[in-house]
Order: sequence, then C-alpha cells, then structure tokens
Amino acid sequence: MGLNRSWVESANSPDADFPLNNLPCGVFSTGAEEPRCGMAIGDFVLDVSGLEAAGHLALDGGPLLDVPFWNEVMAAGPEVWASLRAQVTALLAEGAERVAEPYLHRRNEVELHLPFLVSEYTDFYAGRHHAFNVGTMFRGPENALPPNWLHIPIGYNGRASSVVVSGTDVRRPWGQVKGPDDQAPRFAPSARFDIELEMGAVVGLPSDHGQPVTVEEADAMIFGYVLLNDWSARDIQAWEYQPLGPFQSKATATTISPWIVTRAALEPFRTATPAREKPLLAYLQEPRPLLYDIALEVGLTPEGGQETIISRTNYAEMYYSAAQQLAHHTVSGCAMNTGDLLGSGTISGPAKESCGSLLELSWGGKEPFEIAGGRRSFIEDGDRLTLRGHARGDGYRIGFGACSGKVIPALADPYRRD
Amino acid sequence: MGLNRSWVESANSPDADFPLNNLPCGVFSTGAEEPRCGMAIGDFVLDVSGLEAAGHLALDGGPLLDVPFWNEVMAAGPEVWASLRAQVTALLAEGAERVAEPYLHRRNEVELHLPFLVSEYTDFYAGRHHAFNVGTMFRGPENALPPNWLHIPIGYNGRASSVVVSGTDVRRPWGQVKGPDDQAPRFAPSARFDIELEMGAVVGLPSDHGQPVTVEEADAMIFGYVLLNDWSARDIQAWEYQPLGPFQSKATATTISPWIVTRAALEPFRTATPAREKPLLAYLQEPRPLLYDIALEVGLTPEGGQETIISRTNYAEMYYSAAQQLAHHTVSGCAMNTGDLLGSGTISGPAKESCGSLLELSWGGKEPFEIAGGRRSFIEDGDRLTLRGHARGDGYRIGFGACSGKVIPALADPYRRD
Repeated sequence: MGLNRSWVESANSPDADFPLNNLPCGVFSTGAEEPRCGMAIGDFVLDVSGLEAAGHLALDGGPLLDVPFWNEVMAAGPEVWASLRAQVTALLAEGAERVAEPYLHRRNEVELHLPFLVSEYTDFYAGRHHAFNVGTMFRGPENALPPNWLHIPIGYNGRASSVVVSGTDVRRPWGQVKGPDDQAPRFAPSARFDIELEMGAVVGLPSDHGQPVTVEEADAMIFGYVLLNDWSARDIQAWEYQPLGPFQSKATATTISPWIVTRAALEPFRTATPAREKPLLAYLQEPRPLLYDIALEVGLTPEGGQETIISRTNYAEMYYSAAQQLAHHTVSGCAMNTGDLLGSGTISGPAKESCGSLLELSWGGKEPFEIAGGRRSFIEDGDRLTLRGHARGDGYRIGFGACSGKVIPALADPYRRD
Repeated sequence: MGLNRSWVESANSPDADFPLNNLPCGVFSTGAEEPRCGMAIGDFVLDVSGLEAAGHLALDGGPLLDVPFWNEVMAAGPEVWASLRAQVTALLAEGAERVAEPYLHRRNEVELHLPFLVSEYTDFYAGRHHAFNVGTMFRGPENALPPNWLHIPIGYNGRASSVVVSGTDVRRPWGQVKGPDDQAPRFAPSARFDIELEMGAVVGLPSDHGQPVTVEEADAMIFGYVLLNDWSARDIQAWEYQPLGPFQSKATATTISPWIVTRAALEPFRTATPAREKPLLAYLQEPRPLLYDIALEVGLTPEGGQETIISRTNYAEMYYSAAQQLAHHTVSGCAMNTGDLLGSGTISGPAKESCGSLLELSWGGKEPFEIAGGRRSFIEDGDRLTLRGHARGDGYRIGFGACSGKVIPALADPYRRD
C-alpha cells in the first residue's frame, strides 16, 4: 500500500509526517477560542469538531467531538474509529469536493493540548537492552536482568497527573538524594535529571474488573500510540526505589507527543517481537506480530545552541509489545479504562548511540558524551530534549510529531510563597 | 467536648458509630432510585442531596450534592466543608425542628456505593512494625528496615480502577507464581491471598503541578479518612516485585469503607507520630500532632461460620501521618487532585495479635493461627474479612462503619468466554 494522495498538497510529500494515511488525533486551539478536536494533515490541522458540528461528519452515538479530548471517540469502539477514518479520508482525498477546506488551520499557527484525558498511567520496563544496561551498571553483567524479566513484562503504576503535552517546560525537581558514602540523605535539586525514550499506548476500550483479557483482545483495545518521555531523576530514584519501586523520581513530568497515531495508521508496520530467550506462559504469547517498526531519535538542544541527535533506535527493539503489556496488566483482574496510558519502557538498541536515556549514553555519568559545543552526562538547565519518530512506508511515512520539553531551573526554595 | 445530642435517638448511644459529632459522607440508593449523597446519623442515612434540592441546605457555589459522589464538595474547600457540617448539625440537633425527618432512610435498607470518584490511588508502607516484620521475614532482623525507611514515607502508585466499596465480593486472582526451587514460573490462582489493614486519606483540595506543599498545607488538603483493605496476593508479589515494586499482586481489589469520616470529626483525636529514630529532613517534619488515635480491628468469618477477631491495633502505630505522606507525594512537583486516595500502609502493632496482615499473623504461613472452628495461614475461599475502626470520645465514638469483602473462588479458566 502506498501513499493515499490528498488535495492538501503538503500531505503528499514523502517526508511529511502527516499524509492522508496517518490522520492522527489531537486537540488544538486558535487564538482565544476553546480547544477542540483536530486531525493533522500535511501542514494543517483539520477541525473535526467543527466538521461534526456542521454535519460533514456523522458518528454513531454522536456528537462525540464536541469536547476538547478524544476519550468519547476512544470509548465508542472500533466501528466508530473506522467510520471516522473512512469519512475523513473521503473528505481529504485527491479529487474530493473541498467542503473541508474552511476547517483547515495552519499547524504552526495553532496551540496543541493534551489529546486525551489520562485516566491512569502505567510505565513498563520492557526494553531488553535498557534493562541489561541499567542492570549491568547496578549489579554487573552476570546479574543484569532480574530473574523475572524474561517471564513478565515488568511494570509499575505511574502518576497520571504528571502527564503533560509536548512543549510544556519541565522544572528540575527537588528531592531526597544520598550518595553511597553519605551518612544521611540531603534535600536538593536533582543533579542527575534524565529522559526515557518510550512509546505510549493509549487504551480506547475498557475491560471489566475481574476479567483478564488475552493478548489479542488487548491489542483490539488500543486506540493508538504517542511518543512518551518519562523524565527521571536518577539520584532521587536510586535512593527511593527500594523496596517498592520508583515514586517521586518519576512524578515530575511525563511528556507525550500531541498526536495520537491510530492503530489503523500503524497496521502496515507490524513486526514481531524478538525471539524469546525463555518461553512465555501461554497468556502472554503473541498470536501474530503485534509490535511496530518505528524509527526513533532523540535530540538535545542546549539553551541558545544547536541540536545534536544523541540517539537513534527503533520501537522494534522492545522485548514485549503493548498488547502483551496490556494483557498482563489485567491478569489479576485489574480493570482498564478508556484513557489509560501505557509507557513501553525505555527503548534502547544494542549500540551505545542507540540508547534511550542519558544514564546509558553517559554510562551512569562516567563517560560524558559529546554534543555540539559541549558534553553531557545528564540534563543541564535550559536543555531541550526532543523525541521524534516515524514509520516508513512506500513513498510516505507515518510521523508522530515532536515530543519536546525544555528543562528549566529548580525553584530556589520550593516552599517559599510569594 | 462530649456528645452532640441529636433528635435522632439512635445517634446518642455511646457505642453508636455515627453520632451527631461524626456526620460522615457516603453515597446511597434505595430500591430502583439513582445513587445520591447521604450522611450517616445513628441508624439512618440522611439524604443531603434531597435536602439541598429542597432548599434546606445551601452551599456556596452549589448545587454541589446533585451528583452521586462527594468530589464537588471536596473540591469546594474548607469553608464549604465547615458550612455543610454546621448546617447539618443544626438540622439534626436535639430540639431542632424536624424538617430533615422525611430525608432519613434506615441504614439497613439502603445500598451503599463508592463515596467518591477515585482520581488516583497511592499506597504507602509507613507502619514501623509491619515494615520490620516483613523485612525480618525476607532479610533477617538485622536488615529488616530498608536504609531509606526512616527518612522517606515509602510509597508506590496503585491502581485507582481497583478500588471498590465495602460489600463487594473479591475474586481470587490468577497470576505468575514461582517457588524458590521452581525452574520457571507457573500460571495459577494465588494461594497466598491476604489483606492489608490500612487507613485511607482522601484528598479534597488539589495542589499545583510543579509546586511542593508543606506538611501543614498537606493536612489542610485532606477532606477525610476511610478504612482501607489493600488485598494482596503474596505469592504473585514475591515473584513480580523486584525491581520496580508491586503491580498485579495489588491490582485485584482495594476495598474502602463506605463513609468518609471528615477531618473535622476526627480533630479531637489527634496524636503525635512516634518518636523519630532518625531526624527527618525539614520538609517532612510535623509542626504539631497530625496522626489520629483510632482503634482498629480485623474480623475473619469463614463461609457459614462465626467471626474471629484476628487483630486489634491502632492507627497511632504509624511512623508517618497522612499529611507527611501527602507532602512527600508533592516534593518533586507531582500535582495532587481532588479524589486522590492515599493508603497509609499496613497498620501493625508491636504484638503478634496486633498485626494487620495474615502474612504477619501466620509469619509467612509458617505459624498458622487459630480461628473459631479452624486455622488459617492465608485467606480461604468463602472467607469474609472485615475491618472496623473508631475513635473514642467522652461518651461517644466516631466510627467508620465496616470495610468488608468476601473472597470468592478464582475463575476456573480466566480466558474462557461463555
């Protein structure tokens, strides 16, 4: 399948992130107007809320787009998802009557908002290379992988209230830190603030409390995917995470890209998870390839400086797919809801320059890496970190748009009220 | 301060859980009617939604009680909380005109629902004796407490979708389990299903993203408290919890009592946290006693059998108060929202018969304990576990109502669809 051509000419470039094949879902506003639902097409955002209100789009159970989030569409299920995609494709296809033209806004003139209400947020740890790298730093290469890692898509619950949209500044956090030789912890701004390059799966359809779902059922529940940066304060994490896992080290912010790329748009890019090193229990086995081939990169731009691409990797490096993670998430009866967000875990490739965190790129700070005009071990104030990703088709690509955030200095005194 | 006498006679008994001093907040329904907000008084529930609709209650920014949850009142802040309490106290006080009488429903004739929409759920690990006991079982008494435990109120994010109201059956979960001598994990129903006796703090006022709050500010954000049973599958937990903490072992269900006992009702029962074994960092120090003296007990009733009280303890055993936990929760900039629920951690006293989990009561299953007509190490199918609690005043008490759940057998095949 090649490019679906559109009368929106900028959507037909082979390097456009948002061709007609994509049609990702976001929330945008223009000037003083209220945020509303849009889909990206070429250099534009299509106001689908407006199209529905004007009767150019009709969805079963609608109106579903009269709210500034996609949760109502997500909850409406796969027939509505397919119907919306078909209707918008028809409106924008080359040769179609241009009734949608008044509903196009230049993307560089709109403000983008969180595309959905995040119900709950779960973060996984499913990158084989990342787990091995971090485990090696902490425990040596012989004991790098925890014994459960090849059997369980290890995950922990994160904090939904920390999720922000690309473009939001991220303030360096304070917290408890303690060096290995310190007698007691200190209260200080994090000195080892980091990123985690991840994909986020967005749950559309809910599951019932008490009822586990299969991997195939889990895949069908997923509405789409975003890029996700799970900002991490490594020094706070090292001191707090035993025995119950990361907590405040991961609660400062989690940035997602503004567009939910739907499962339908990604379908041509399915790929199998890597070969199993140990057999999985039946409930976790994949009936078919459920991972995706998505090229990813991370850019670091110092304040006033130029960007260096510090990592290039691929979502296909993950040992577990989002469908496997979601199936595991329900195994003990946990109910999943529309708007739940599942972080994949840090996506690192086998090579050093394919690592998805500065912790790995600088090997725990011991081997600072070069950037244009400087070196880095961890993030410095003013640095902008930008994730990008796309799947490459025949003559087109499915892009995610940037997932970007600038780190601003810690509060001078976090408890002072002016 | 003694009993506030009411014209609802059953509220004046010294052993009534719900005297006029209490006025806890719940959601109830009668017959086929829609759930609505109520407050418990003696043997009755007062329909405060109905009273507000009829103009007998007036709240700033109201109506706030025209929804089947307390979140709108909780978000409205302390002046509204105080005003509601004062107005209902006046309506029910001895000698008052009985305009509220038509709004009373017998408690044993109503159905109770979750009293609030749970935004996010966090569980802590703040019981000194519980942490020591569990640590001793896993690591020996010399290394029982993790090194961070006396410095940080250790917590992890739980799953809000797992929270259910007292009376909801709890189905024994399936999951991955692996004995120490097993070569590989098995998929099986949990054989070591357990309770955790906790208090839950309910966040009323939100905090801003990026802005930590002090312990005093945190206390003022808390609307009230519930009893909380964090059901735990110990065998699943033991295999999954390293390195990122408990996940599916804690996601089957978390049961809360149906009444939110307000901070105002509990104010006379403040008590200080125990003496610090190591000094706390300034941001965690308590400016005044912020814990509560609340007597707690756990009953176990086998199917068709009689109840045995298997534990008696007190909330005052906690090393950290909910205000300290909530302050820590915000330290890295995490935003807290109306409806967030914070579990205290398992509340165990120093003696064996004051332990808040079967894991401790049976010392990891090695020392089964006696109940009427049998013995237990962990929960058996058909067992009902009931938490109860109250603070004792002069001639009255502030009760929480039961927090109860019966464990029903695991699904025969969790993936069969009939």
